[in-house]
Amino acid sequence: MDINHQMVLTAHPEGDVKDSDFALTTAEIPAPGDGQVVVKVDLISIDPAMRSWMNPGASYVPPVELGSVMRAGGIGTVIASRHPDYAIGDELYGAFGVQEYALSDGTDLRGVDTTLAPKTTYLGALGITGLTAYFGLFDVARIQRGDTVVVSGAAGAVGSVAGQLAKITGCRAIGIAGGPEKCRTLVETIGFDAAIDYKTDDVRKALREHAPGGVDVYFDNVGGPILDAVLTRLARGARIVISGAVSQYNDRRPKGPANYMSLLVNRASMTGMVVFDYADRYPEATRQLAQWLAEGHLTSAEHVVKGGIEDFPGLLRGLFTGANTGKLILEL
Amino acid sequence: MDINHQMVLTAHPEGDVKDSDFALTTAEIPAPGDGQVVVKVDLISIDPAMRSWMNPGASYVPPVELGSVMRAGGIGTVIASRHPDYAIGDELYGAFGVQEYALSDGTDLRGVDTTLAPKTTYLGALGITGLTAYFGLFDVARIQRGDTVVVSGAAGAVGSVAGQLAKITGCRAIGIAGGPEKCRTLVETIGFDAAIDYKTDDVRKALREHAPGGVDVYFDNVGGPILDAVLTRLARGARIVISGAVSQYNDRRPKGPANYMSLLVNRASMTGMVVFDYADRYPEATRQLAQWLAEGHLTSAEHVVKGGIEDFPGLLRGLFTGANTGKLILEL
Repeated sequence: MDINHQMVLTAHPEGDVKDSDFALTTAEIPAPGDGQVVVKVDLISIDPAMRSWMNPGASYVPPVELGSVMRAGGIGTVIASRHPDYAIGDELYGAFGVQEYALSDGTDLRGVDTTLAPKTTYLGALGITGLTAYFGLFDVARIQRGDTVVVSGAAGAVGSVAGQLAKITGCRAIGIAGGPEKCRTLVETIGFDAAIDYKTDDVRKALREHAPGGVDVYFDNVGGPILDAVLTRLARGARIVISGAVSQYNDRRPKGPANYMSLLVNRASMTGMVVFDYADRYPEATRQLAQWLAEGHLTSAEHVVKGGIEDFPGLLRGLFTGANTGKLILEL
Repeated sequence: MDINHQMVLTAHPEGDVKDSDFALTTAEIPAPGDGQVVVKVDLISIDPAMRSWMNPGASYVPPVELGSVMRAGGIGTVIASRHPDYAIGDELYGAFGVQEYALSDGTDLRGVDTTLAPKTTYLGALGITGLTAYFGLFDVARIQRGDTVVVSGAAGAVGSVAGQLAKITGCRAIGIAGGPEKCRTLVETIGFDAAIDYKTDDVRKALREHAPGGVDVYFDNVGGPILDAVLTRLARGARIVISGAVSQYNDRRPKGPANYMSLLVNRASMTGMVVFDYADRYPEATRQLAQWLAEGHLTSAEHVVKGGIEDFPGLLRGLFTGANTGKLILEL
């Protein structure tokens, strides 16, 4: 098998992602040039943000160009190397794309220490998603013991870590997710103090009950009506972290938070974050997260699906219908 | 003339303010009890925020109750005193309401030093409006020399001071206002570097021209489509100060800023402020503002209308149609 299956973006989706926005193509397995490595991809990270990368306009990263392999983070094993820092058998994290084999010049590769945690965890609690929760809560929102912290997309990869970091800090953690099963997981497995099912609960009313003193910190992964509901329940001096807006990515005409004047009434702030800005502090954060994992204060919720490159479009779609709990990973 | 004319709120307005939302009533001129003063009101401050005080729900201040004298800041002269700190003839700033005579127990009264600046300036650059610009720019937005600062409602009481404080700090100041005359005033009289007429210009396009490197600080008094336009032109790390939303106050179904995800893309923040939180620092800020006034770096744009209590509803309405430039003051 010397064929490299690749998932290539062929159209900027209108609304929901369709199979026809991609083409499954084949290429030869690349050979490394001077200073390059070739990696066999073992795990592919599937993230809501991918949907925004597929739109034509510039966002916090350039869009994926039509005809290119779909961008994705992943973990792979070096199978050929002409790079001084990497040897055959090394396991690495990198932006390998949705394909079976990737060529890299070493840029932004990170080592994966499987003595510390299983490989999948480097796409979960120790991956970009865990780091997003870490810097979002500690640096942007500056959470303090005693804060009431609300997390949306709480059963997702970022949200499940955010809730646990809030608990580790001595905050009250309230998770918002869709469906009774996820909500049970939030409280019984992940450790949130309370869960709100946005599909059946009146989110405003539920927040009044679960956060009677108001919301000090809101870690927002979804935007839309849930953001608007939380805005009505802010405590004085609240901090909202905008980490994503999964409810809006498929929407060509996103709606803004109509209740944003609550920021004025409550002297609150809403701040956008992109985890890449903290790259020079990843080692420090990863060490801390790994320690909490080792001590049992933190678990990495992962949803690993075994399959092939061809399964990617359907898995990505599933993120927006709420099919997964924890970090969604395609294991090749 | 021992009659006190008062403007009483009789209905929570639906949409625009109507004359019928008020009643002009008369009462006796009050006599001071122990620890009280009676003030003859000379100047009444007319502010966009008044519209939000007339809505039934709680905002950053309690709503004005139906049947009460309409709330207003003003400047008056003590005509009777049984308060140890105040003597007949003292000129004071206070929340005297829309009436000719006010009774006060001394709470939140501030002295007015007419050797430093004319009385009207204590409702303008040295008043709540000037202080809002001061704390909004220096404390919330932390403006720095070289920043590009955009101000909406730039010909208004807060906006005209904000633009001048930006210039004093060594920023580039761009004002947004309605109509060619106001825009001329912004540049020729107030000292903005550039003006954008939102009634005729494409605000996005004009920002691309006047702020080619993006907007570092946006001081927002209006909300609505202008906020959305500025969101598309943010520089990395931009700070938006939400000081008001005059375009939304008459609206029962306000619209949120659809482009708020620009906060994420640009790692930007949007923070609400209420000037009252800085009350313990008013003296420091007032001294600084008075010094800039004395040195000629700052002018207080005031629009003084002579009239009676009965003129109040029409003047308030005029704020929302853009009739005034600078601080609107009713001189009785």
